[in-house]
Amino acid sequence: KRTKNIVYGKRGMSLEDEINESNKYYLESGIAVIHKKPTPVQIVDVFYPKRSAAVIKKAYFKQASTTDYNGVYQGKYIDFEAKETKNKTSFPLSNFHEHQINHMKACCKQDGICFTIVKFVADAQIFLMPSETLFYYWDRQNNGRKSIPKEVIAQDGFEIAYELQPRIPYLKYVDRLINK
Amino acid sequence: KRTKNIVYGKRGMSLEDEINESNKYYLESGIAVIHKKPTPVQIVDVFYPKRSAAVIKKAYFKQASTTDYNGVYQGKYIDFEAKETKNKTSFPLSNFHEHQINHMKACCKQDGICFTIVKFVADAQIFLMPSETLFYYWDRQNNGRKSIPKEVIAQDGFEIAYELQPRIPYLKYVDRLINK
Ligand SMILES: [Mg+2]
Ligand SMILES: [Mg+2]
Repeated sequence: KRTKNIVYGKRGMSLEDEINESNKYYLESGIAVIHKKPTPVQIVDVFYPKRSAAVIKKAYFKQASTTDYNGVYQGKYIDFEAKETKNKTSFPLSNFHEHQINHMKACCKQDGICFTIVKFVADAQIFLMPSETLFYYWDRQNNGRKSIPKEVIAQDGFEIAYELQPRIPYLKYVDRLINK
Repeated sequence: KRTKNIVYGKRGMSLEDEINESNKYYLESGIAVIHKKPTPVQIVDVFYPKRSAAVIKKAYFKQASTTDYNGVYQGKYIDFEAKETKNKTSFPLSNFHEHQINHMKACCKQDGICFTIVKFVADAQIFLMPSETLFYYWDRQNNGRKSIPKEVIAQDGFEIAYELQPRIPYLKYVDRLINK
């Protein structure tokens, strides 16, 4: 019954790769300008050889203070996280960091469009989850459950059907999110 | 006659530092969410020590494919470059890369708000230059001049007066740019 996803959802490809490819399509087609932010790195030591490019000899990974992706689509600011889980029935909140939530809350206050693209890898199912759903569960996790049920994600958000081009046509669901 | 800038424009501070500080103020005051993108780095070799954080042992600087800053302000997508020049009367186009221009053109087509914050360091003068001015000179540089005259920047854009908080109140001029 998930033939579509078995066909289009390339096995070895990570969710990020699939989204990057989709963003490339959106960019080249003039549909939207959305990029993955570079991994933040704390550079400690750089070597400058005489005749060639500078080489970073020592650096550390820094905690990202924002989300994975942002950009512009028809005048609208788009901001989202991409997350995969091996869980089958719910999405663990431990996948998020406080600062990512704070960033999304701040963007929402500025009328940005914020969401998470969640992939349940076991079934190759992808959902666009509105930030309100995330905030609701996040803010209640200390006296409640530590994960978001898949049915809630499906009900509050949209299941994204894989397509050929772009592989993950998430902007189609952003349109629906806006018109909801 | 430039007393203001001598007072507020801290000597040792780079334009980026001044903008980062201003963005911090905007973020903490709930006015806008605008961040500097991390420097893109091509990671070649990572060492994972047993009991401590991963160390990047070899990496290279990558050419940025977009601009320095982006974010959201009152529902609007904001995208800009920050550039300093030691030139006194004009801003050399060699400060830009083709891909930055292409990125700004693509964002403008999506109705994003794009500009450059230009600092003439000799006089500690800062301008918000609309992207249209940049595109005009950029597209004509092969059979014309290779720099944008300061008077043109002042006329098409806005001189930004340093303030105490935020140091570079560029969003005030973004308001004017929108209402132009
Ligand atoms: Mg992610
Ligand atoms: Mg710059």
